[in-house]
Amino acid sequence: MLDRRFLRSLTKVVGRPNVLAEPADIVLYSYDSSSATGRPDVVVFPASTEEVSRVVALCAQHRVPFIARGAGTNLSGGSIAVRGGVIVELSRLNKVLELDLANQRAVVQPAVVNLELQNLLAPHGFQFCPDPASQKASTIGGNVAENAGGPHCLKYGVTTNHVIGLTVVMPSGEVRRFGSGVLDTPGYDLVGLFVGSEGTLGIATEMVLKLRPLPEAAQVVLALFDTLEAAGEAVSQIIAAGIVATALEIMDRNTIRAVEVSFPTGLPMDVEAMLLIEIDGLAEAIDRQAARCAEICRTLHARSVEVGKTQEERTKLWLARRSAFGAHARISPAMLVNDATVPRTRLPEVLRGIQEAERKHRVEIGKVFHAGDGNLHSNILYDRNDPEAFHRAEEASREIFELAARVGGTITGEHGVGVEKTKHMHLLYSPQDLHAMWQVKRVFDPLNLANPGKVLPEEAEASQ
Amino acid sequence: MLDRRFLRSLTKVVGRPNVLAEPADIVLYSYDSSSATGRPDVVVFPASTEEVSRVVALCAQHRVPFIARGAGTNLSGGSIAVRGGVIVELSRLNKVLELDLANQRAVVQPAVVNLELQNLLAPHGFQFCPDPASQKASTIGGNVAENAGGPHCLKYGVTTNHVIGLTVVMPSGEVRRFGSGVLDTPGYDLVGLFVGSEGTLGIATEMVLKLRPLPEAAQVVLALFDTLEAAGEAVSQIIAAGIVATALEIMDRNTIRAVEVSFPTGLPMDVEAMLLIEIDGLAEAIDRQAARCAEICRTLHARSVEVGKTQEERTKLWLARRSAFGAHARISPAMLVNDATVPRTRLPEVLRGIQEAERKHRVEIGKVFHAGDGNLHSNILYDRNDPEAFHRAEEASREIFELAARVGGTITGEHGVGVEKTKHMHLLYSPQDLHAMWQVKRVFDPLNLANPGKVLPEEAEASQ
Repeated sequence: MLDRRFLRSLTKVVGRPNVLAEPADIVLYSYDSSSATGRPDVVVFPASTEEVSRVVALCAQHRVPFIARGAGTNLSGGSIAVRGGVIVELSRLNKVLELDLANQRAVVQPAVVNLELQNLLAPHGFQFCPDPASQKASTIGGNVAENAGGPHCLKYGVTTNHVIGLTVVMPSGEVRRFGSGVLDTPGYDLVGLFVGSEGTLGIATEMVLKLRPLPEAAQVVLALFDTLEAAGEAVSQIIAAGIVATALEIMDRNTIRAVEVSFPTGLPMDVEAMLLIEIDGLAEAIDRQAARCAEICRTLHARSVEVGKTQEERTKLWLARRSAFGAHARISPAMLVNDATVPRTRLPEVLRGIQEAERKHRVEIGKVFHAGDGNLHSNILYDRNDPEAFHRAEEASREIFELAARVGGTITGEHGVGVEKTKHMHLLYSPQDLHAMWQVKRVFDPLNLANPGKVLPEEAEASQ
Repeated sequence: MLDRRFLRSLTKVVGRPNVLAEPADIVLYSYDSSSATGRPDVVVFPASTEEVSRVVALCAQHRVPFIARGAGTNLSGGSIAVRGGVIVELSRLNKVLELDLANQRAVVQPAVVNLELQNLLAPHGFQFCPDPASQKASTIGGNVAENAGGPHCLKYGVTTNHVIGLTVVMPSGEVRRFGSGVLDTPGYDLVGLFVGSEGTLGIATEMVLKLRPLPEAAQVVLALFDTLEAAGEAVSQIIAAGIVATALEIMDRNTIRAVEVSFPTGLPMDVEAMLLIEIDGLAEAIDRQAARCAEICRTLHARSVEVGKTQEERTKLWLARRSAFGAHARISPAMLVNDATVPRTRLPEVLRGIQEAERKHRVEIGKVFHAGDGNLHSNILYDRNDPEAFHRAEEASREIFELAARVGGTITGEHGVGVEKTKHMHLLYSPQDLHAMWQVKRVFDPLNLANPGKVLPEEAEASQ
């Protein structure tokens, strides 16, 4: 139970309408888009860096955990209050503070939604490259916390490559500025350290983003295959041809069916794999590259190959891919999202391993891959009301992580460790490595109040 | 003076021929390419990660500073033993350990020379994007330590965007692996923290690099202008036209003269500015972009505009730019390299400030700019034998740094802080920011033995 004085102090900072403390109100903040749950004691809605700073300082003073939260689309439990405490809901910090197009950068608050930023930039001919599948809902703050990826990150790099400065409320409540308005800053790269730290080092309240001109033109090639292997082979051949695609996305039959049942797009239900290729660049150049991709797919006996050139045609071809997560969520009461990532050439054997885990643990796995960079999304469907089914899903997920680690990959390409994967961190890191991360954490958060229970396994702190 | 037992132990690790301890031998290692000097007590040449680890463990045991050194091209004193100790000269660690082209990565040892790696990759159609001007001599280890830039980093990003894994000998002598073979790894980004830390957190002995296909074609446009402002305006207009050039380089008259005196390339000596533009991409597309750049330059009354299409023509146009540093070094006994970086739109006022500093402090400044990303190189020439001249050079440099900081820029775009710029770190960071960096340093290097006296000002450790 929270101290009454603490609650009064919080109310004084953000105002009464911006505090939720009644159980009926805060239950909504006990979930995110993962399988994890946990009830906070209170939810506050600060309106400025200064209010966030005062809220966090109060948490430090009263030794209460705090958890930053945006749209709650987190897929690894990162925004869950696993030890109670204060949810710092950032939705009122939703402004684009500066659009400095001449210097190709924007300064935004954390609750700006990714797609809203893109829509604001597009008429000026610019984009913010990271485009997570959740971009309609997920916020830039969450993208930064998770170091989000997305289809276009194959060509342009993940979020950390596009953030050059941050204003951060440290766990003491102090406000710090990391990085600057230019690309490289002297001293240790604390912006790089902060991006992807999943809210465990503080709360970013302003971010300076790199922008990039929109490509002049783009084309999409969509090919359907009768085996998953053929789709994978097409990806290898496209890359070997020296083509730097903006996206190379594969969906398996389970996913295609889920999409067609939920949001019909006209794909045949008996096809084994869909490969979506996007090429961007200058108008006169991409014709030849798209044609070459289509030719590779045909040579590999694709059942059909379609090329989309206009915005309308491209949007239509992207539709099934963009609907994949929503479709899975619709046909299954719950799913465990496994985003293991492996060196691209190890994809075939990892694919076989995933299919084996599917059979062995009697789970259905929807496979949606950012195939170009080896980032697999295995959506392991289970019934939330059946504990035994959840156990089997967890076992299948563990086996996929172990396999990924064994072939030189990692346990998360973009969704973060959160609370769901802390137990798998030992697959990648020695006790000494994890201890070093704990030491870094303690530099910034000596009391372990910033999103505790996430990223780093507790037991690793003691080992040395 | 070094303990005899310590020296014997070092000799046992690397073998007698790989230890230099005679004053006449080690004097060569008292300099790098900056104005800083400092004499080490001993220089060792280890041949493996294990030998580096044992050398560093001995340093920890005997409380002796150690300084990693590669080709010694450092421009900020980063490889100077300012407090004596052991120079760990890495030149025997010069192998490319793995070329995994299918996964677009290479694993290399630190003493691999940047250009040698490029020459090895080019026949396979690949490149390592960072291309510092020193690439003929500078090593990948140094590029990683300094987070090096280079002309092509405008389009592709600085070194930290191209390193995905590291094997590091920690200041305790322990060997750690950071990152992995894939693009994003869970937990704190210790690779990002290490890149650019200038040897103050440990010694990297293996680095996993991202490779990128070479562009299919490239064109270079070289324009000569009668004012520096017109060249700057051309850069602004090219960027505003949405053209993502691979390089946008400006040289001023002082630099052109230095080049023509030292390595004549045929440039007229009375011109005020040279602008070099490189465009890469697909053959049919870059024609139009290069033509558009040439047209912008002509509209701005360029005295001449040349376009190079073949490899030979391009190399010829790059020649003067690539010779700039060597030329300055040749005409002046010494120079102070100031690589302040500013938001691109602030270039005109900063240019005026640099010219003012030049007059006020009676120094000659050669200006070579990566203009596209606001990275200025002011080579401040002075006479090493005239202390008063050095003082004036330092004053001019300080004024340029202050101006850069004032307009939202930084004190180094790529050459590092080293020993020369620690005194300017307060222009960018508060005592609290610097204290946080010191705390991070102490996590990895509690005894302050890894390249002490660099990057972080000593006095900042105490402040909180």
